[in-house]
Amino acid sequence: MRSFPAAVERLTEQFNKLPGVGFKSAQRMAFHVLGMNDAQAEAFAQAILDAKHTVKCCEKCQNLTDMEVCSICSDPGRDQNVICVVTEPRDVAAMERAREYKGLYHVLHGVISPINHVGPDDIRVKELLGRLSDGTVTEIIMATNPDTEGEATAMYISRLIRPLGVKVTRLAYGIPVGSQLEYADEVTLMRALEGRREI
Amino acid sequence: MRSFPAAVERLTEQFNKLPGVGFKSAQRMAFHVLGMNDAQAEAFAQAILDAKHTVKCCEKCQNLTDMEVCSICSDPGRDQNVICVVTEPRDVAAMERAREYKGLYHVLHGVISPINHVGPDDIRVKELLGRLSDGTVTEIIMATNPDTEGEATAMYISRLIRPLGVKVTRLAYGIPVGSQLEYADEVTLMRALEGRREI
Repeated sequence: MRSFPAAVERLTEQFNKLPGVGFKSAQRMAFHVLGMNDAQAEAFAQAILDAKHTVKCCEKCQNLTDMEVCSICSDPGRDQNVICVVTEPRDVAAMERAREYKGLYHVLHGVISPINHVGPDDIRVKELLGRLSDGTVTEIIMATNPDTEGEATAMYISRLIRPLGVKVTRLAYGIPVGSQLEYADEVTLMRALEGRREI
Repeated sequence: MRSFPAAVERLTEQFNKLPGVGFKSAQRMAFHVLGMNDAQAEAFAQAILDAKHTVKCCEKCQNLTDMEVCSICSDPGRDQNVICVVTEPRDVAAMERAREYKGLYHVLHGVISPINHVGPDDIRVKELLGRLSDGTVTEIIMATNPDTEGEATAMYISRLIRPLGVKVTRLAYGIPVGSQLEYADEVTLMRALEGRREI
């Protein structure tokens, strides 16, 4: 015998599909919704529909936006000669938090991953190449994640771009600021040694 | 400068309000919704509204239901003489999973907790007393949580009910089946000793 009404079970299933949400947490969330007042529940449902309907990809950098061209691409104060290539929209947010980078971005929306059947045509590589045709861009900074797939994607793209006469660079590897040397893994230490600089 | 469209930030805020969901998880969930197709996002939003609009409390036992009287209360095969009093709807689900109890339930929707300004009138005590007036019920099993507030609530209710000539019992305390004695806390062991039975 079912112990809860079908609508509660359906809502639990929906929460259960979210990343990192198990069945018990999903059930807690469903009960939380039941405890909301009508206006709160409608605001929640509306937020889902709004996000889905108003958010699209910037036609230049492919970052999420609710305009045709995002606020970074349309900002004349940003350096139009440099593009930082990242995997996901949240990587743009991370870079912006550092308040150091003043150029443009390009969001790939994924990495090349043969094991997951993701090839170069499944991520926004073509769109990146299209932005290089008019010669404005002189440097591409690869900022994919420092894992196997991120590396492979960066290598693939840099090989496509270099023949166009555009400089391709990569974020530095090394020990994270504020960390402790004894906890650094061997590969990171090796890269930090390779990349050592005169002080 | 905001890095995400307002609709994404609003959806992140909504997820952030759910129990046990921090900002980073909420952001992941919001991106997950953006990755859904339209039908999936609409099903999710609709599930929230449906749960909120169709689910109400059973007019007898106060458990969640989408009917006037829930499926347990309207089942003639359940023992009409016993009511098990629990704190929350999910406690009914837990009891039902044990497949041992064949009586009715009463869901209090909370416990008496002066520190949180919850008094006897804020939980469904009145409704419980109303179910005892016709003399059908001969036993009330208190199954509130074995913590201070659950205990106090059980004591308060049992004092109200006993004058009506209805037997009031409580779930047994003791060591959980499958656990190890060495890890049992002192209070549980004391209660297990007190409640020892001849074998």
